[in-house]
Amino acid sequence: MLDGPFSESIIKRAQDKGLVEIHTHDLRDWTTDVRKTVDDYPYGGEAGMVMMIEPIYRCIEELKSQRDYDEIIYTSPDGKTHNQVQANHLSTMKNIIILCGHYKGVDHRVRENLITMEISIGDYVLTGGELAAAIITDSVVRIIPGCIGDEASALSDSFQDNLLAPPVYTRPSEFNGWGVPPVLLSGNFAEIDKWKDAQSIERTQRLRPDLMEE
Amino acid sequence: MLDGPFSESIIKRAQDKGLVEIHTHDLRDWTTDVRKTVDDYPYGGEAGMVMMIEPIYRCIEELKSQRDYDEIIYTSPDGKTHNQVQANHLSTMKNIIILCGHYKGVDHRVRENLITMEISIGDYVLTGGELAAAIITDSVVRIIPGCIGDEASALSDSFQDNLLAPPVYTRPSEFNGWGVPPVLLSGNFAEIDKWKDAQSIERTQRLRPDLMEE
Repeated sequence: MLDGPFSESIIKRAQDKGLVEIHTHDLRDWTTDVRKTVDDYPYGGEAGMVMMIEPIYRCIEELKSQRDYDEIIYTSPDGKTHNQVQANHLSTMKNIIILCGHYKGVDHRVRENLITMEISIGDYVLTGGELAAAIITDSVVRIIPGCIGDEASALSDSFQDNLLAPPVYTRPSEFNGWGVPPVLLSGNFAEIDKWKDAQSIERTQRLRPDLMEE
Repeated sequence: MLDGPFSESIIKRAQDKGLVEIHTHDLRDWTTDVRKTVDDYPYGGEAGMVMMIEPIYRCIEELKSQRDYDEIIYTSPDGKTHNQVQANHLSTMKNIIILCGHYKGVDHRVRENLITMEISIGDYVLTGGELAAAIITDSVVRIIPGCIGDEASALSDSFQDNLLAPPVYTRPSEFNGWGVPPVLLSGNFAEIDKWKDAQSIERTQRLRPDLMEE
């Protein structure tokens, strides 16, 4: 599940450059039974399966014995909603564990005793926490200085200033009868900057007025 | 990037059962130059690269000639924030295209003329739209009837009733001095249901009061 996302594009480049290390761990490696059981039926008769505390506890304890972690994160719909500010904050940390839930989630004692931070990537339910962990990783790693090819590019992203990015256009200047705004072809960079700022503000007011209230 | 997420777990099972077909397309297959160029510098001197309209136009036109699409979705921070209601809605549709942006995004004429719906999975910037497309796909496919093993499990998920799910526990009943709430071990299902409902409401009020206002 995670091999693809972590071996592509900027995430791969960041690892190749030595800017970040990403290790994936299979909880089955911390089971003690022959069938490598990581889940069991929930107490109280709910449908679905629950991830057991024992393999998670052993895994986290072993990892903690090897280095210090700033946060041990669990991906959950109950968590703090992920956003760019949180991504910026996490990108300043040294070591992070992200525990991926699956099935109906993890035994609640894991969350009460082992987890230091819960993050939700949005108000929707996923098959498992792996994709959520991939999203958090991607959003955090790409803003570590040196990861992205062009630093200026990350700074002009949406959300970094609570504004949506202005529209972008590239060649050809006309396609299928659809043109590019003439100002962008004018070469007048003062006018272009003014246009971009106005577009950013207009788009944010129209599409995401909530961002401007923060 | 997408091979892993689409060949694991419930998404794989849904395809194996014939409940859903997922096709990934590489825009480079719709380029006409030797270098298979899909991006170019933005007009107006912005940092970063922009995905060109031509390969996208040709790709979408070819796909539309083969079947009818309910929505042609672009993943973008400007889009409608994805949530469970939107996932439920998309799961009732027949055919959907999801266009994944990359770099600084796609030429804006794509969004104005070819896209019917824009979705944001959250207020953070990602390396590309692939993970966002995987998230949307996962959230939508898992609720197609027959996909998930236990139908009751999906219905008791967080968000389906604007409440967070209650805590879950599984064996052992005590681990490292940490116990399971005694009511869950009582066998009194009326009491257990009452406890679960109370937990759901208490957790939602404490962690996500905004969900209850909707």
